[in-house]
Amino acid sequence: MKKGPLNLLTDVPGVKVGHVTLKQYLDEKDSICTGVTAILPHEQNSFLHKVPAASFVLNGFGKTVGLIQLEELGLMESPIMLTNTFSVGAVLEGTLSYMLEQNPAIGDSTSSLNLVVGECNDSYLNSMRLLAVRPEHAIEALQAAEPGSFEQGAVGAGTGMICYGVKGGIGSSSRIAEHDGHAFTVGVLTLTNFGRAHECRMANWAQDNLDKPDGSVIIIVATDAPLDARQLKRMAKRAAIGLGRTGTHIHNGSGDIVIAFSNANFIAHESDQPIETQSFLRDDHPLMNELFQAVIEATEESVYQSILYAETTTGRLGRVIEKGIF
Amino acid sequence: MKKGPLNLLTDVPGVKVGHVTLKQYLDEKDSICTGVTAILPHEQNSFLHKVPAASFVLNGFGKTVGLIQLEELGLMESPIMLTNTFSVGAVLEGTLSYMLEQNPAIGDSTSSLNLVVGECNDSYLNSMRLLAVRPEHAIEALQAAEPGSFEQGAVGAGTGMICYGVKGGIGSSSRIAEHDGHAFTVGVLTLTNFGRAHECRMANWAQDNLDKPDGSVIIIVATDAPLDARQLKRMAKRAAIGLGRTGTHIHNGSGDIVIAFSNANFIAHESDQPIETQSFLRDDHPLMNELFQAVIEATEESVYQSILYAETTTGRLGRVIEKGIF
Amino acid sequence: MKKGPLNLLTDVPGVKVGHVTLKQYLDEKDSICTGVTAILPHEQNSFLHKVPAASFVLNGFGKTVGLIQLEELGLMESPIMLTNTFSVGAVLEGTLSYMLEQNPAIGDSTSSLNLVVGECNDSYLNSMRLLAVRPEHAIEALQAAEPGSFEQGAVGAGTGMICYGVKGGIGSSSRIAEHDGHAFTVGVLTLTNFGRAHECRMANWAQDNLDKPDGSVIIIVATDAPLDARQLKRMAKRAAIGLGRTGTHIHNGSGDIVIAFSNANFIAHESDQPIETQSFLRDDHPLMNELFQAVIEATEESVYQSILYAETTTGRLGRVIEKGIF
Amino acid sequence: MKKGPLNLLTDVPGVKVGHVTLKQYLDEKDSICTGVTAILPHEQNSFLHKVPAASFVLNGFGKTVGLIQLEELGLMESPIMLTNTFSVGAVLEGTLSYMLEQNPAIGDSTSSLNLVVGECNDSYLNSMRLLAVRPEHAIEALQAAEPGSFEQGAVGAGTGMICYGVKGGIGSSSRIAEHDGHAFTVGVLTLTNFGRAHECRMANWAQDNLDKPDGSVIIIVATDAPLDARQLKRMAKRAAIGLGRTGTHIHNGSGDIVIAFSNANFIAHESDQPIETQSFLRDDHPLMNELFQAVIEATEESVYQSILYAETTTGRLGRVIEKGIF
Repeated sequence: MKKGPLNLLTDVPGVKVGHVTLKQYLDEKDSICTGVTAILPHEQNSFLHKVPAASFVLNGFGKTVGLIQLEELGLMESPIMLTNTFSVGAVLEGTLSYMLEQNPAIGDSTSSLNLVVGECNDSYLNSMRLLAVRPEHAIEALQAAEPGSFEQGAVGAGTGMICYGVKGGIGSSSRIAEHDGHAFTVGVLTLTNFGRAHECRMANWAQDNLDKPDGSVIIIVATDAPLDARQLKRMAKRAAIGLGRTGTHIHNGSGDIVIAFSNANFIAHESDQPIETQSFLRDDHPLMNELFQAVIEATEESVYQSILYAETTTGRLGRVIEKGIF
Repeated sequence: MKKGPLNLLTDVPGVKVGHVTLKQYLDEKDSICTGVTAILPHEQNSFLHKVPAASFVLNGFGKTVGLIQLEELGLMESPIMLTNTFSVGAVLEGTLSYMLEQNPAIGDSTSSLNLVVGECNDSYLNSMRLLAVRPEHAIEALQAAEPGSFEQGAVGAGTGMICYGVKGGIGSSSRIAEHDGHAFTVGVLTLTNFGRAHECRMANWAQDNLDKPDGSVIIIVATDAPLDARQLKRMAKRAAIGLGRTGTHIHNGSGDIVIAFSNANFIAHESDQPIETQSFLRDDHPLMNELFQAVIEATEESVYQSILYAETTTGRLGRVIEKGIF
Repeated sequence: MKKGPLNLLTDVPGVKVGHVTLKQYLDEKDSICTGVTAILPHEQNSFLHKVPAASFVLNGFGKTVGLIQLEELGLMESPIMLTNTFSVGAVLEGTLSYMLEQNPAIGDSTSSLNLVVGECNDSYLNSMRLLAVRPEHAIEALQAAEPGSFEQGAVGAGTGMICYGVKGGIGSSSRIAEHDGHAFTVGVLTLTNFGRAHECRMANWAQDNLDKPDGSVIIIVATDAPLDARQLKRMAKRAAIGLGRTGTHIHNGSGDIVIAFSNANFIAHESDQPIETQSFLRDDHPLMNELFQAVIEATEESVYQSILYAETTTGRLGRVIEKGIF
Repeated sequence: MKKGPLNLLTDVPGVKVGHVTLKQYLDEKDSICTGVTAILPHEQNSFLHKVPAASFVLNGFGKTVGLIQLEELGLMESPIMLTNTFSVGAVLEGTLSYMLEQNPAIGDSTSSLNLVVGECNDSYLNSMRLLAVRPEHAIEALQAAEPGSFEQGAVGAGTGMICYGVKGGIGSSSRIAEHDGHAFTVGVLTLTNFGRAHECRMANWAQDNLDKPDGSVIIIVATDAPLDARQLKRMAKRAAIGLGRTGTHIHNGSGDIVIAFSNANFIAHESDQPIETQSFLRDDHPLMNELFQAVIEATEESVYQSILYAETTTGRLGRVIEKGIF
């Protein structure tokens, strides 16, 4: 399928990505090697202009926050934040502050706010117990978010992640689903921290002997196709298929979680009208199968991109994770 | 059915509850009126000795953390923390610190840690935007946790909560399921922050005219009956039935979430053995229906207990929520 | 809340109900005491004009057919059929024949067809092993379906059912949700075959000593409010709350299943257009909470109606189930 | 990974498979080209000796029967039957008769019976509207079931199925998961009726131009590893990953459904004892990841086997589906 102009999540108009990278040698034992990545669903205030969203938990050995309300209402009302496992609390706090400042009514005269934070465990390279990520890093990542090109590899939340035994991190890709004059973009961003070298279908590197627990992967799917929450869950399931194509056996200890949203329709936080009118793609239209193919392909490529762009990284205890060469 | 000796969650042997209450008048506009409640599943290290657990989301307009992994593995490996909606991040941080101190291997040589935090929105009485709950309050609540009797009503996470238009908060109750010489205890603790006066089946008070968003309720079910995660999900669903009996219509904006665990069987964090042997109650044994009745009755009573024990409370903007008199 | 003009499922415009009752004494051992009930979602061809639908499984000890596709697509494309547990196959066959005759393209030039059949176990009164229901009985029930008034109690699929130790069967009720000039109808039909006398909150009769397995209940919710599948699942969950209010402990062996549909919007089987435009009620509109209340109240009353209208019934082995007097 | 001795589902000790193939030219328009396949979980009475089981619905455009109870209780108490979409009713009836004859207490003095029937739509080749499969064909398939070798390809339920534009049907494969002296077998059987030629990763054939709706696939996973229902659901999800590796985009109209069971532990239908003691593999044992790999590999190969063994088939309207050559 045709790729988007940047082959990135941000090929979906309005989507913005920002990173904060924390990398610091402390001593023989400890190094900071982690970060935060922020994904904004569109250019408006995400609380006032909510978007349809859904999730799929392929393997739930993970600590992602915010999916209960996202599933109940079929809506996302905040950015998606990515970080390491132990920094979920700090990133929640920072993102909350950022959103409260933008929205004086939240927690005062209107309802509360549902935040979404995904995580992977970067403790092989990062001294995760030191809790280096602070709330302000989440705010920085949000402020850094821009449309267009963004860095991949060992950056942001991906700084300390390991994929198929080599350096992973942030990867992204996009596809254009076209049919009969209609065209929609599907963008995918993955935070890759999973798998052993021998599983990878594209690996050109030796088997790893890492003495580390199973890792995880967070997959973010964005589209400008008009899909509702039910349809986005179907997209999320196909992302799992794309992930599987890279070779992983979806280990017991891997939190493999997909979050999908569409920014084609906004749902206003408040309205005087009881009735909303929305447009959705028909499930049986050929474009739907094209969208399914798009998310599978873009997810598969995103995983490889995360490796392609990541550089050899040295972390705590002097541990080195090599760059993977395809 | 027969009640446990204390008619509390802690009638289940080993279960401990601790509160931290934050109550402070700041100025005409702001008051702190919130807190933290900690529930420990047993007297051992909860990470090293995990317990079967499950959840049921009756209405998902809520921000509870930790259910993805709890559902995937059918296990709980931490205390359950309760607080206000905006303090989830701080409580995660505090609980993480507490657990890291107890478990030097987490995030270093062994896997990560799944924390469970439930919340309700206390922003009618509490200046929630001030983020008064800090990580150390979570630690204090954990340190305060004891077996046996504990306070109910406007205390801990329940300090600022409102139920059926009157003061709610923490309520608890227990029942003994007996059959043919076997006896198991079911304990329930509720954090009540939901409903309008006219809905309540037991209300003896005037209709409320509160201009506030829909609230939520968190229901914790504990038992010493040997149940696995699948069976505990069935228990959790029955808790929702008990909640419904108090009269609520389960409003759109209410996060009504149940978490159930059994501390009859421990699953060790690590083991040399590939095979675990566990004992479980047969689904078709009459005791199972007794346990279902127990959880329904104890949940219903817990809601009323939260009102019965709560005192009239003044919060931010001089707002007063009256004690409900049955 | 205000009831609909007939206080029946068919107060929702377009909904039709038809019964076939099979009642025959064969010999001292065997009696036929069963039937079929058909519920048509609207007056058009249900395959060509699909409606949004969802289900909720409160307790899955049941054999209801058709929920997988209904959940995936959020659509219902057939009538809902109710019968006894062993007659699901025969009713599938009969309903299929009926639909194939109406739709020559199904299984030829267009896709297949998803049928929905619910069941309860009437084997205490009915010689269920004799498989008395044949495919033609399903067709008869479909042909008998009419708008407006229909029989309740020991009729159709309810002929041999037992509720709270007395005669149950088919019950129905409706409510009008109103707000600010808008009004929508919620209709409920229950097939009741569950519970023990001592559980029933309204029972005025002695405890039963029936030596029978746990029974089940099927709850059908219809509305003309414009709700999508996600919202209908929320309605279905509230029906479970209404059921719980009648007193049941939701026994292990009870298949307690809710199916909800809205006939406010039709989705055409085929369309030249890739995009559908639909109108839906906002989740946060006060009417939504009214609809939740409506489904709770109508479900509760439907259960009682099934008893109120059912007459004392004699079945196999000379067993007699008495009429329940409130 | 090592394959089992037959590379078949029946490498799992006790599992039996039987086919009935219906193949008949009627006239220029109509041909019968369909059948039934029966899978028995072990050599004992499946109702009296239930086995842990779970399912995963990758895409729910399907009519599989029996998953509600299987999920609630985590048990399977019957054979798994496979057939065409319109024959689910007839196969339910036949299987019911077979089971009733073996179990005089069902529907009389004990509870009812949960049957499991999976289906795909074979209407491109088979005159499915003629309902050629009758209840006795299900009984024949059950009686034909044997351990050891069985036919693959265009046989049984696979007689009229089409996979990736060429002839599909029944395929099977197995793998041995080994670690440290422990060894368990994973067997997979697929009924393949999905995909377009251009999607298939192994296709050596021209793109198809079939004017047919999307098809489906049913995947049966058996193992002798001691897994409970929660763990079997994890296995079922990995089967979806294996399916995805063959290239499919998981089309909108495809019912892609996995059912997994373990026959390592039996759960007796009735027992005097309230407590069951069971042995289960630890989730974190290396064997679990081996089992995940086994089910992925065996599912992928099963799809290809279904094509490898299927012969060119002529069906209704003189339509010919060619054999696929790898």
